[in-house]
Amino acid sequence: MVETLRFRNGKLELVDQRLLPGKFKYVKCDTPREVWSAIKDMTVRGAPAIGITGAYGVYLGIKGFKGVTTRTIVQKVIKTAEYLATSRPTARNLFWGLERMVKTAKDNGGLPACELKKILLNEAHAILEEDKAICRAIGENGSFLVPKGARVLTHCNAGALATADYGTALGVIYSAKDRIREVLVDETRPVLQGARLTAWELVNEGINATLICDNMAAYMMSKKRIDLVVVGADRISANGDTANKIGTYSVAVNAKYHGIPFYVAAPSSTFDLTLRSGALIPIEERDPMEVKSLGGKLITVKGIHAANPAFDVTPAGLITGIITEMGVILKPSRSRVKIVLNRGSRSSQRYGTRA
Amino acid sequence: MVETLRFRNGKLELVDQRLLPGKFKYVKCDTPREVWSAIKDMTVRGAPAIGITGAYGVYLGIKGFKGVTTRTIVQKVIKTAEYLATSRPTARNLFWGLERMVKTAKDNGGLPACELKKILLNEAHAILEEDKAICRAIGENGSFLVPKGARVLTHCNAGALATADYGTALGVIYSAKDRIREVLVDETRPVLQGARLTAWELVNEGINATLICDNMAAYMMSKKRIDLVVVGADRISANGDTANKIGTYSVAVNAKYHGIPFYVAAPSSTFDLTLRSGALIPIEERDPMEVKSLGGKLITVKGIHAANPAFDVTPAGLITGIITEMGVILKPSRSRVKIVLNRGSRSSQRYGTRA
Repeated sequence: MVETLRFRNGKLELVDQRLLPGKFKYVKCDTPREVWSAIKDMTVRGAPAIGITGAYGVYLGIKGFKGVTTRTIVQKVIKTAEYLATSRPTARNLFWGLERMVKTAKDNGGLPACELKKILLNEAHAILEEDKAICRAIGENGSFLVPKGARVLTHCNAGALATADYGTALGVIYSAKDRIREVLVDETRPVLQGARLTAWELVNEGINATLICDNMAAYMMSKKRIDLVVVGADRISANGDTANKIGTYSVAVNAKYHGIPFYVAAPSSTFDLTLRSGALIPIEERDPMEVKSLGGKLITVKGIHAANPAFDVTPAGLITGIITEMGVILKPSRSRVKIVLNRGSRSSQRYGTRA
Repeated sequence: MVETLRFRNGKLELVDQRLLPGKFKYVKCDTPREVWSAIKDMTVRGAPAIGITGAYGVYLGIKGFKGVTTRTIVQKVIKTAEYLATSRPTARNLFWGLERMVKTAKDNGGLPACELKKILLNEAHAILEEDKAICRAIGENGSFLVPKGARVLTHCNAGALATADYGTALGVIYSAKDRIREVLVDETRPVLQGARLTAWELVNEGINATLICDNMAAYMMSKKRIDLVVVGADRISANGDTANKIGTYSVAVNAKYHGIPFYVAAPSSTFDLTLRSGALIPIEERDPMEVKSLGGKLITVKGIHAANPAFDVTPAGLITGIITEMGVILKPSRSRVKIVLNRGSRSSQRYGTRA
């Protein structure tokens, strides 16, 4: 399985996902600014992966910081986290990772500066290691939902490239590998995470995979070529409404129409229990040129406008179940989400604006 | 409005739609083989346009034919029509155009060879001229369905480039131009007829147009940015089921879910009354490389399979109305189709296989 993120010689190394599948190359980040850009320009993407990236970004902000008192270091941690929080607005995991680093700094404010730095690096390491365990747990919890001989549709990339291990939605597929007949892969315009990243992962893992254009999914459902859908998530509100890559909602509506189970796979860090419903999730609007061009080449006329919402929200009512490391939330609702996550209030330090 | 097809100096000239919007260039066809290729490789596309192209193709087959008896000419017409019918399987209009040329030849079998040739060329001209009038009638019939300030979604290209005049679905939009606030254009992967052709037409006509990826249509519906959908058609069965460009079905399911009117605009020549339902319409499967590449460049990994159905079928139950030159068939059904089309049996000479 590819190592999407790693920390080596004091630097964060990220697989440059803009170049895949043509080129496999690591990009090194040494400063919060470099980390910010890597998240913004999608060198690294996928909610869990950018959560981990953000955490390391906070550490890089204080690594060489010459502040002598721990108080100035804690202040620097807060400032760096605030800065990194402005990179992308939708994925909850980014803010979750940043908040966790800030909380760690505050909780250890009494320690000497060099000690605090070590603790913060270890916290980032812990977030990465925990994500690996979480992917395995999600995979296992989800694998029971995959019938023998299943043909599975996935959208975007929620695989190894979106996490520290083998992914969330693809984690389910990898765990149930022996029972899966075929994986249909939505190409996922405009950035083609399906065609470029999921296709690359599945072929590398020897899984029988077929690429389709996003607009073919409904046709494949009508032809009974899809038994279930599994996708990742970028933010899930308290009632189970799920923001994920643009196009997910269209797949969910079609799955409902065809009576096909539609699953979301995501770690608990993707939940934002402060948001009553998905309508409050901020949706990133990206550069229209991502839609108007491909590989740097214009595919349409200059004079046309283009919209480029990067995510959409699938209401809980269209979701058969949300697969988390803590268990599967079937027919998600406010109370069912609470029961499975089984946790109370969240950290008070919060980043990321509401929609 | 662009002249998509024209007959000049004994040759059929077609706008090369593979090159748009980058380059505007006519391709000249002098033989049935050249016409066959132009249809197959989508130099010309759009159901009405390939119907007209096919008719001229039949004439080109006998134009220089040295057969002395009219009987050999009629035989040649039949052979040429059979050959051209193998170019693409889904659009009804192609077979309709070919059948009409064959019928004309048979009906005039008693005339001298040079007379028959003239009659056949005139028949092709008539088909082209009639299409212009049909586009205008469809546009007018459909324009009454467009409310003031409407935001309209269209998929693929059913405009001037798909017909001899200003199109079917786009004909409705052009007719109601003054009442339309915005047209949303599905890019229409894999061949990008929306991004390349519809965008080009709408910008040329000064219509406020916004390009979206196909997977964004549902999101736009949920955000109340779409008031109605209008698309073209490639073949409509007797009960109103409609084959159109892949992705149309997905849009129709989403329109139904959001309570948005979904209209099909097509000439009566698109109807295939011999087919009981859309399940019998043959769906063309094209080269997987159209999905795996863009502009000649691979966008995914070599090892992955790809599916490339060029069309899908939208059941009549998802269609609010079919706009024809003879009137609008609201809530299409077998009997309602019959009433509006008001015609009996069809030509006995038939091309195009069933699914």
